[in-house]
Amino acid sequence: MSELRQDPISGQWVIIAPERAGRPDDFSRRTATRPSGPCPFCAGHEHLTSTPLWELPASAAASSKGPNATHWRIRVLANKFPALADNTTMAMDGAADAPQAISAAAGRHEVVVESPEHVQSVTDLSPQQMADVILVYRDRLAELKRDPRLICGLVFKNVGPGGGATLEHVHSQIVALPAVPERLRAELAGAAEWQARHGRCAFCALVDRELADGTRLVATSESFVAVAPWASRMAYETWILPRQHASHFETFSDSMSAELAGMLQQVVGGIEHFCEGGAYNYLIHTAPFDTPSGDHYHWHIEVIPRVTRLAGFELGTGWYINAVLPEIAAAKLRNFIAAAEERRSSTASLPIR
Amino acid sequence: MSELRQDPISGQWVIIAPERAGRPDDFSRRTATRPSGPCPFCAGHEHLTSTPLWELPASAAASSKGPNATHWRIRVLANKFPALADNTTMAMDGAADAPQAISAAAGRHEVVVESPEHVQSVTDLSPQQMADVILVYRDRLAELKRDPRLICGLVFKNVGPGGGATLEHVHSQIVALPAVPERLRAELAGAAEWQARHGRCAFCALVDRELADGTRLVATSESFVAVAPWASRMAYETWILPRQHASHFETFSDSMSAELAGMLQQVVGGIEHFCEGGAYNYLIHTAPFDTPSGDHYHWHIEVIPRVTRLAGFELGTGWYINAVLPEIAAAKLRNFIAAAEERRSSTASLPIR
Repeated sequence: MSELRQDPISGQWVIIAPERAGRPDDFSRRTATRPSGPCPFCAGHEHLTSTPLWELPASAAASSKGPNATHWRIRVLANKFPALADNTTMAMDGAADAPQAISAAAGRHEVVVESPEHVQSVTDLSPQQMADVILVYRDRLAELKRDPRLICGLVFKNVGPGGGATLEHVHSQIVALPAVPERLRAELAGAAEWQARHGRCAFCALVDRELADGTRLVATSESFVAVAPWASRMAYETWILPRQHASHFETFSDSMSAELAGMLQQVVGGIEHFCEGGAYNYLIHTAPFDTPSGDHYHWHIEVIPRVTRLAGFELGTGWYINAVLPEIAAAKLRNFIAAAEERRSSTASLPIR
Repeated sequence: MSELRQDPISGQWVIIAPERAGRPDDFSRRTATRPSGPCPFCAGHEHLTSTPLWELPASAAASSKGPNATHWRIRVLANKFPALADNTTMAMDGAADAPQAISAAAGRHEVVVESPEHVQSVTDLSPQQMADVILVYRDRLAELKRDPRLICGLVFKNVGPGGGATLEHVHSQIVALPAVPERLRAELAGAAEWQARHGRCAFCALVDRELADGTRLVATSESFVAVAPWASRMAYETWILPRQHASHFETFSDSMSAELAGMLQQVVGGIEHFCEGGAYNYLIHTAPFDTPSGDHYHWHIEVIPRVTRLAGFELGTGWYINAVLPEIAAAKLRNFIAAAEERRSSTASLPIR
């Protein structure tokens, strides 16, 4: 039996259709993943990329480790194939006989190379490395915010061909846009409407509701909650929200980075376990740069597995079809993460002989 | 140099970024396409599907052709894995502490099997067969419209794994929905706003503008125009519009079916030529069932090649990134189609010896 669910904040409709999980498939999902040439993101191949915009240096101990030593742990590069750059033009609806009304616009498109080693998953990074990656996201957003022509920023990660990745070496991307994009605009409007109607932040209400209900909880920590959203667009979709209200990700404090890194690695580990192929995107949703801090928006990370392909139905309607009930996905992820934590802590507490 | 373009009717933003065409790719796009079992859509396998909702019988000559004869040319089946059916529930934003406010809703999900033979492309169908397929789309929509619980219908085709297809045998799908989906809602609102501002249909204006300008024209015939839309979401995206204003596809007259079929086969042939892998979706955009006919909406077919995968950027923003200028795509498709037509007509005019 299908169920149509609407996200109460963004207004996004989703069809939850468990029957569709059993569909036949003529097409193999396996794809070859052999890079065709030297990986431009690996240590030793720095000459293949432009001068980095920023680097986190390796520790003195690591960089003195013989001929294969690298001097960096994380690099930020200008995207060699930018979607947006400074010389962008914006053209929108003009007169009846010519739709173009062109103005100049700025944009940025950066790449965060998250390890000098050729690993493919954030679960291959050390907890410290993952925490540093999160702080780099924050610091780059704060840097981009200083350009008054840039209106908002989006950090996202594409993993696997199903997630739209073209390079497998672990990396993320940051774009800064000259306008508020539709998806964020819908969320901002929905959150403002909710606030007006209920007198509090829609995301704070969501956190309280999911903590009280429990059926869609994936993981909890002191400062964060991971939930399968009620109107999940994709099977095993998971959102990570800070418990405390904050509109901008770039105001995030250093002291919470290890906690957020740990939860993100847990969630991705669960998705890699349950979703064949392990393709996913994660996205940091944060308020536009010039929104007053403490505003009704509440930053969060959306982790979206790419288990089914967006087809004609999704393109034609803007609705998604999801074959796994969020309540079932949450229970599976929750149990998997709890079991992994148990294994980890029992290993950690083994007496060293 | 990138260009941000906004569709003047739907409001959809697109980034045209030709630089991105040269991106490296670690992931092979080739996928195996061997069906894992007997194809349920082939002649002789009718026992694998449910009783058809409707069939176009084969001609007497064809069905008397020995043991492999089939009695049908086109079949319409209830989708075995429906996204929506009669027992759907609709749940939307309710109170602050519980988002659910559930109501019952109806839906339909049908499959049109477009040939008894195991062919994969509409370009493999005879012109007569393609024309009949189009009339089946029309007649099924007209039939679904009779159920007052169904608000609008969408005909779509998924081709190739990149287009979200799971079966390769040539087929389309028809859904009937209990609400107007977001994408159509945005188009309806944009078209109404345009009409109010300019005193005429936005799509009629588009047809006139593209005919006068010519740079984005892909093909023309007596009753139809094919254009690369100014804000094309995907490389080689092409829309087919009737020259004469009509809001509902289901009012389409028999006499135009061969002409539309021919143009659709030309456009798909061009896309299969230029887009590696040949994955695409086509969608028939038509007004909601109960909209008065002759309203400001103007039905059309959108053919959307799936050359790049929707990644984190598209999910996070709702914007698309397209690496091929619509004006260049149109010129290539136009030349290809004209050359194919020339070959066809010169072959047809050869004297029979």
